[in-house]
Amino acid sequence: MRTRFYNARVLTMESDRDIFFGEVWVVEDRIIFVGTEEEGRLYCDKHKDTILIWDREIDCKGNLLMPGFKNAHTHSAMTLMRSKADDLPLQDWLGTQIFPIEAKMTGEDIYHLSKISILEYLTSGITSVFEMYLTPFTVADSFRDCGMRCVQTSCVNNFSQSVELLEKYYTDINGRDPYNSFILGVHAEYTCSRELLEKCAELVHKYRAPFWAHIQETEKETKECIERYGMTPIELFDSLGLFDYGGGGYHLVWTNDRDREIMKKRGLYAVTNPGSNTKLASGIAPIAKYLECGIPVAIGTDGPASNNCLDMFREMFLVTGLAKLKDMDASSVDATEVLKMATVNGAHAMGLDDADVLAEGKLADIIMVDLQQPNMQPINNIVKNLVYSGSKSNVVMTMIGGIIRYENGKFNIGVEPSEVYGKAEEIKNRIYG
Amino acid sequence: MRTRFYNARVLTMESDRDIFFGEVWVVEDRIIFVGTEEEGRLYCDKHKDTILIWDREIDCKGNLLMPGFKNAHTHSAMTLMRSKADDLPLQDWLGTQIFPIEAKMTGEDIYHLSKISILEYLTSGITSVFEMYLTPFTVADSFRDCGMRCVQTSCVNNFSQSVELLEKYYTDINGRDPYNSFILGVHAEYTCSRELLEKCAELVHKYRAPFWAHIQETEKETKECIERYGMTPIELFDSLGLFDYGGGGYHLVWTNDRDREIMKKRGLYAVTNPGSNTKLASGIAPIAKYLECGIPVAIGTDGPASNNCLDMFREMFLVTGLAKLKDMDASSVDATEVLKMATVNGAHAMGLDDADVLAEGKLADIIMVDLQQPNMQPINNIVKNLVYSGSKSNVVMTMIGGIIRYENGKFNIGVEPSEVYGKAEEIKNRIYG
Repeated sequence: MRTRFYNARVLTMESDRDIFFGEVWVVEDRIIFVGTEEEGRLYCDKHKDTILIWDREIDCKGNLLMPGFKNAHTHSAMTLMRSKADDLPLQDWLGTQIFPIEAKMTGEDIYHLSKISILEYLTSGITSVFEMYLTPFTVADSFRDCGMRCVQTSCVNNFSQSVELLEKYYTDINGRDPYNSFILGVHAEYTCSRELLEKCAELVHKYRAPFWAHIQETEKETKECIERYGMTPIELFDSLGLFDYGGGGYHLVWTNDRDREIMKKRGLYAVTNPGSNTKLASGIAPIAKYLECGIPVAIGTDGPASNNCLDMFREMFLVTGLAKLKDMDASSVDATEVLKMATVNGAHAMGLDDADVLAEGKLADIIMVDLQQPNMQPINNIVKNLVYSGSKSNVVMTMIGGIIRYENGKFNIGVEPSEVYGKAEEIKNRIYG
Repeated sequence: MRTRFYNARVLTMESDRDIFFGEVWVVEDRIIFVGTEEEGRLYCDKHKDTILIWDREIDCKGNLLMPGFKNAHTHSAMTLMRSKADDLPLQDWLGTQIFPIEAKMTGEDIYHLSKISILEYLTSGITSVFEMYLTPFTVADSFRDCGMRCVQTSCVNNFSQSVELLEKYYTDINGRDPYNSFILGVHAEYTCSRELLEKCAELVHKYRAPFWAHIQETEKETKECIERYGMTPIELFDSLGLFDYGGGGYHLVWTNDRDREIMKKRGLYAVTNPGSNTKLASGIAPIAKYLECGIPVAIGTDGPASNNCLDMFREMFLVTGLAKLKDMDASSVDATEVLKMATVNGAHAMGLDDADVLAEGKLADIIMVDLQQPNMQPINNIVKNLVYSGSKSNVVMTMIGGIIRYENGKFNIGVEPSEVYGKAEEIKNRIYG
């Protein structure tokens, strides 16, 4: 499939390139050219031997092309519990509502329930997710069948999965198909014994691989770890060698200076989840401090039962807005930085270095943003518009690996939305009775 | 125009009525029937003399009909400054960025620039706004010409407008056309002399009318008023008799127990603006305390230069989310309460008692929400879905006074969006040079 986008404003997200008017050319799953119309002519002169015949030429009518968003933390199949257990504190929510329902979910349920989230990601211009859930193989099947990129980590803990399974996921899912990959990780300190964490550290060293987990999401969890070990979860994980090859944490709301020193030293990523931390009253992550320390931040929606919306636009506004409130400083965490978190940093955190920016040779994970809707007018500053007034209603096209999976409200994931909702309804009826 | 909506889920927002499956019938600008299909047949039997011939029958396909949102605080023409002056504290933002640009805006500019916001309101299911800006007559023209409901108050202060003009707006705009009305008010304590406020109090008593202003938005403004008068703005306004006939305030972030006692005693409304208070780092309003005291809360987006998005879904999430963070309690400010703020309370605050709920005899200000988009699936709880995962992309129809002004992405406001954007571009070029 060869697609030419023309008449576009292009935001490559390369740090040295401003938005320009031009074209993006895609052949198979890669970008072969990004530049002005004039540069396009020069490219053709240079590559006379390669005749470019387009399957499709898309007139972008001045709208914006940019890299797809990277949703750096989610639990996709939790659509089942969306709006089912709201307005509860995190520990109650997990213990009394989520875990009992999860105990009844099968791998096949998870395959189908993930697809509701996949549909929603596409509407919000999300082209890759960093996923953690109960049955990694059926999750991988779901994303592969829909043609969406998925980097998984394990939610292994004392009650679910095992280190043996974790290794099997790691070796079997990596390299399995073009859409799926797998990174080592556990659910969280508060659900894992020291023995389990030590076994994970052996895997980390065996594969010289980065390590991820939910870390210091709530004050309670952080304090209880200090009571147990005399250390914060970050200090504990670091002392066990889990961060010897980098990685990062989801949430990281309750970190202190010492934690941030470790994060900096180990090159860890902080994935922030402001929607979830807000709804579950977990707190506001110290984003400005991460930036000051040079710790890269990425953004995740968290799952649809904790947020409940899988919308990168809402998350972007919350990242900067909550930082402004926390610091009582309206200049805290600029929009430009936030857009980088939602795209480039997310890609790097997830090991998707080929999907970070729009440039020759990169994966064609591209979205088109409609600038002709009223919330994007007038055009004083497109980047600020995206972060402060942008909405998923502006996303009119989502392309993953060169294939358009969402366009003007229509999906192309091999199954009709009504069928996906019907399956979810069946599962709901079986589990909720 | 006679419109029959059928096959709908109906959320009337009456306190004693759950969502049901049924119909809503509209004749001219009013609702004549809301009920189940069976109730509809009974209605027809009773009204045999009135033959109902529909101009249009709309199959809602199970989607949701509900009252339109009431945006209870905005400055619509500030689209000009959207994304032009972000990441600045409120007082700098006003003094160095906003006021100098506003000095160059004409009434005609304001007429045109308001229309970008009107387009955006329609996409978010907003059917009425509580507006405050520089040239109330051209604002009223803009809303009338687009067919959107607008309740204005004055931004009179020491530098702009006058009490004489305020009275003229009040007498001339009220009753002028079906879309516009006017309520007494001033910009804020910090921009008004005591003499000006005293003159306003005379008007309040002359017309026995409620009174509104920006009140206690920032800590600085509140402290400085205490330094000037030994009283908070609420105490000052109350001492001058400005609240003798009720009214309310926009923002109300920095109130104390004594302020809230006055608010309760005078029957004042608190209009909260969480998006703006977040972006400008003004603080988090004590919403749970207002609810405890029985002070009715409504929701406003504030203007497009301070928020910058005119999206009631984002505001609804922020109202409950920020309350949860402020109180560190995930059960603070339930979704049901938030939805009431965004509809019923807003209508009452704005004096639009006829546009509060869906019921026989009420104004036909109705929206349709698409429940077949993935963010609304599965349907565990529609009200929680609206507040926690809802998005303006779910709004597929906005009807005001019986006329559909927005439907499936298309507008019906007497002018094409491209023409509105073109006018804004001309104004931008003239003012910014």
